[in-house]
Amino acid sequence: MKFARFTAAGDPTVRSGVVVDGTVQEIVGNVFETWNYTGNSYALESVQLVAPLQPRHIIGIGKNYVEFEHERPQTLPSIPVFFFKPVSTVIGPGEEIIIPSTLEQVKFETEIAVILGKEGKNIPEDDVERYIFGYTVANDVASPEYFHPDGHWMVGKSFDTFTPLGPWIETKLDTRSLLLQTHVNGKVLQNSRSNLMIVGINHMIAYLSRVMTLQPGDVILSGTPAGADFIKDGDTIECTVEGIGALTNKVVKITRTGATTL
Amino acid sequence: MKFARFTAAGDPTVRSGVVVDGTVQEIVGNVFETWNYTGNSYALESVQLVAPLQPRHIIGIGKNYVEFEHERPQTLPSIPVFFFKPVSTVIGPGEEIIIPSTLEQVKFETEIAVILGKEGKNIPEDDVERYIFGYTVANDVASPEYFHPDGHWMVGKSFDTFTPLGPWIETKLDTRSLLLQTHVNGKVLQNSRSNLMIVGINHMIAYLSRVMTLQPGDVILSGTPAGADFIKDGDTIECTVEGIGALTNKVVKITRTGATTL
Repeated sequence: MKFARFTAAGDPTVRSGVVVDGTVQEIVGNVFETWNYTGNSYALESVQLVAPLQPRHIIGIGKNYVEFEHERPQTLPSIPVFFFKPVSTVIGPGEEIIIPSTLEQVKFETEIAVILGKEGKNIPEDDVERYIFGYTVANDVASPEYFHPDGHWMVGKSFDTFTPLGPWIETKLDTRSLLLQTHVNGKVLQNSRSNLMIVGINHMIAYLSRVMTLQPGDVILSGTPAGADFIKDGDTIECTVEGIGALTNKVVKITRTGATTL
Repeated sequence: MKFARFTAAGDPTVRSGVVVDGTVQEIVGNVFETWNYTGNSYALESVQLVAPLQPRHIIGIGKNYVEFEHERPQTLPSIPVFFFKPVSTVIGPGEEIIIPSTLEQVKFETEIAVILGKEGKNIPEDDVERYIFGYTVANDVASPEYFHPDGHWMVGKSFDTFTPLGPWIETKLDTRSLLLQTHVNGKVLQNSRSNLMIVGINHMIAYLSRVMTLQPGDVILSGTPAGADFIKDGDTIECTVEGIGALTNKVVKITRTGATTL
């Protein structure tokens, strides 16, 4: 099932719906708990999709793909490179990735985003799937020039508009070997399968749940394959994950101060 | 004015109130927007205070105090060490800091926590105070053994119960030279003034607002002075900030798996 959020007919109200056969069937309620169809239906092409959820937390994992299978490390690191992004970074399909004019380096990263649907703590790895609500496509945008030299990525990962999510949440998906691709202005720059992931989705969620109580709406960005690169004003970034769909955003550089020097 | 949240008379409902003269005057509404007195009043000693807010984000700053004025760096770092903690770490006064039995090293850190009350982006430093709702005491608990060797603090900072906040939000406070103290089992381990802060509160918020849109409920932990140390099962940690009050929590080590090895 595909859960989306959207606006329709010039009304700015954000609605929820189920995407089926080129239509969006409007629903009301809490998608993690109980919801009902309203009976309203819209042609998919007539609506404006927005980010499919407003996350509670966004948790990313760094350095989580090998380029080739033979590069896979023999053992996992004892502590994974996890990081948070603020929820203020979220935008939806078609919204602009905005780069303040004071930033030089900004990169895209296409990722499978996992959405938790149930509260969980100390979840056994083989039980993780019961806690997953679904999956969407994420573009984990970052400005590496704002990564602290001591390894803290917070500033570089936290600029507004730096986490496009969409187009919708697919609830039924086997994520073990999906094709991830990024097209920048039509040219393929990432083109890898999710079986090149190092820490698998269920393993990383089981670990995270031994740290913090996971909640519905927590979003986990599962890492990006080889090929992530810099973007610039005017670029169109299309992130696709097989079985979910395409998330497209245009890059706009604006005359505005970004972080600059403390 | 002191804004608190509390439960009373055995009823688990979390209420809001204004603390004045040994009483809590109950209020309803949104403290960041409009609220009204209900007319109900409770003796402060008869209520159980809980965390004074459920934050939207928790943003910490690392390494932000010198021990002595002559150690103050000539220039600020170009990028500050900011980090996030998940909102699932929050507990209130009197609640237990829970250490899973698999964790060896856990530290306390007494800090001034700043609560944003208004949406802000690119806030000029001399205008920051208009965006601040108030201040509370934070204990930024962390397990340094779970800091990634490449500098990512996420895991070590994210265990449940690792951000005690309270006892209430003081809205009127000059934070420039407040005494911060930590008593562990009655013994003073931190005892410094906030004028030893390196990046001042208004300066750090102005910077942050050039990265992300700050929102009501965003909480900024402004760093801890010298003396932060390890804690163990049975310890009582009392964090005090002059002009706000005391935040006391007991440490309990429980037989439960924490993160351990990935």
